[in-house]
Amino acid sequence: MTTADHTTLAANPLLDKLQWRYAAKKMDPAKSVPADKVERILEAARLAPTSSGLQPFEIIVVTDPAVRARIQPIAWNQGQITDGSHLLVFAAWDNYTAERINMMFDLTNEQRGFKNEGWENYRQMLLGMYPQRDAEVNFQHAARQAYIGLSAALMAAAFEGVDSTPMEGFDPKALDEILDLKARGLRSVAILPLGYRASEGDWLVNLKKVRRPREQFVTEV
Amino acid sequence: MTTADHTTLAANPLLDKLQWRYAAKKMDPAKSVPADKVERILEAARLAPTSSGLQPFEIIVVTDPAVRARIQPIAWNQGQITDGSHLLVFAAWDNYTAERINMMFDLTNEQRGFKNEGWENYRQMLLGMYPQRDAEVNFQHAARQAYIGLSAALMAAAFEGVDSTPMEGFDPKALDEILDLKARGLRSVAILPLGYRASEGDWLVNLKKVRRPREQFVTEV
Repeated sequence: MTTADHTTLAANPLLDKLQWRYAAKKMDPAKSVPADKVERILEAARLAPTSSGLQPFEIIVVTDPAVRARIQPIAWNQGQITDGSHLLVFAAWDNYTAERINMMFDLTNEQRGFKNEGWENYRQMLLGMYPQRDAEVNFQHAARQAYIGLSAALMAAAFEGVDSTPMEGFDPKALDEILDLKARGLRSVAILPLGYRASEGDWLVNLKKVRRPREQFVTEV
Repeated sequence: MTTADHTTLAANPLLDKLQWRYAAKKMDPAKSVPADKVERILEAARLAPTSSGLQPFEIIVVTDPAVRARIQPIAWNQGQITDGSHLLVFAAWDNYTAERINMMFDLTNEQRGFKNEGWENYRQMLLGMYPQRDAEVNFQHAARQAYIGLSAALMAAAFEGVDSTPMEGFDPKALDEILDLKARGLRSVAILPLGYRASEGDWLVNLKKVRRPREQFVTEV
């Protein structure tokens, strides 16, 4: 089986959506993503799995034009930030604290309606490991989980026919200040404008999507 | 495809798949994931977006039972590693080198059939920034990109009706030794056994999926 075998590969609808999506470089400022679509995109990120189920990140949805106008200059003036209708900011926990770990384990017990001994032992293991670690190590770990959610959101957007452009090209400290994230124990790690590709002015839209061929990406043991 | 094609969708199929999937705790060793399904799961990871399109990770597909038996003890003896039929190892680049950056930009030019001035300027910007940075900073950045692919793979698996269990609970250095990843400039960051949930013996399968409610996960500005 080769990657060129599109007939078979197309059987998975996610592959069609991954082919359809691209990092839109020019969004149409006249078009707004409907609220129900935004909700389903957020829901995908919320349902995405994370390490130990801790969900160590939050999403800030910025629609206020004035706030987006303040964000744009600290993000290389990328136009999608203001031309899109919604800007999702993925912000990871700056640390794993006992309080945060207990919050998620307590929520799990409450939702499931009982305490599970294995799960309680696992809580104790995490409590004995994470809060003692360097905050930066914990943040890096949390940031990776946020990327699982970012990935889910951009794929959900593709299923909605919504364009999204994952971006790391911004000053995280400046963004954290604009959104007052430090006070909430959060650090921005990625942003995702949502909108609709403009009919012209996007240098990328008609270019071939390039990925390394399977043989340079996958090895078998 | 136009966005109008999607406006009539009552729901987003990705959400159904995210509800269906869970981190299978017990896989049926008698069941093997068909090769075409594995290919489509790998293809989703290959198509997933990454920062600057560098795809700074590779996937090692381990099926050899002897190798998986060696991996199991350095991964908390988790049964899915040997009870599943395929073990995907996500391994990030240990550093961004000029050679790796040039490889991806050259491939892009070759595939698109022309040089784009803006893209060449962007190459020079990355060449002036990444190779000079601390290798650990670059690795952490690459690891995040690998998690976008991990997320794509586990969602693609759900569309295939294949169970997968994302795992960080393993000794990365030991795994890198078993698979000889250091010589290839790779560091393992996550593993994903693929298989089918066992009919019994899984403590998690019937428990409620727990996530923080939207109001504790999303804020609006």
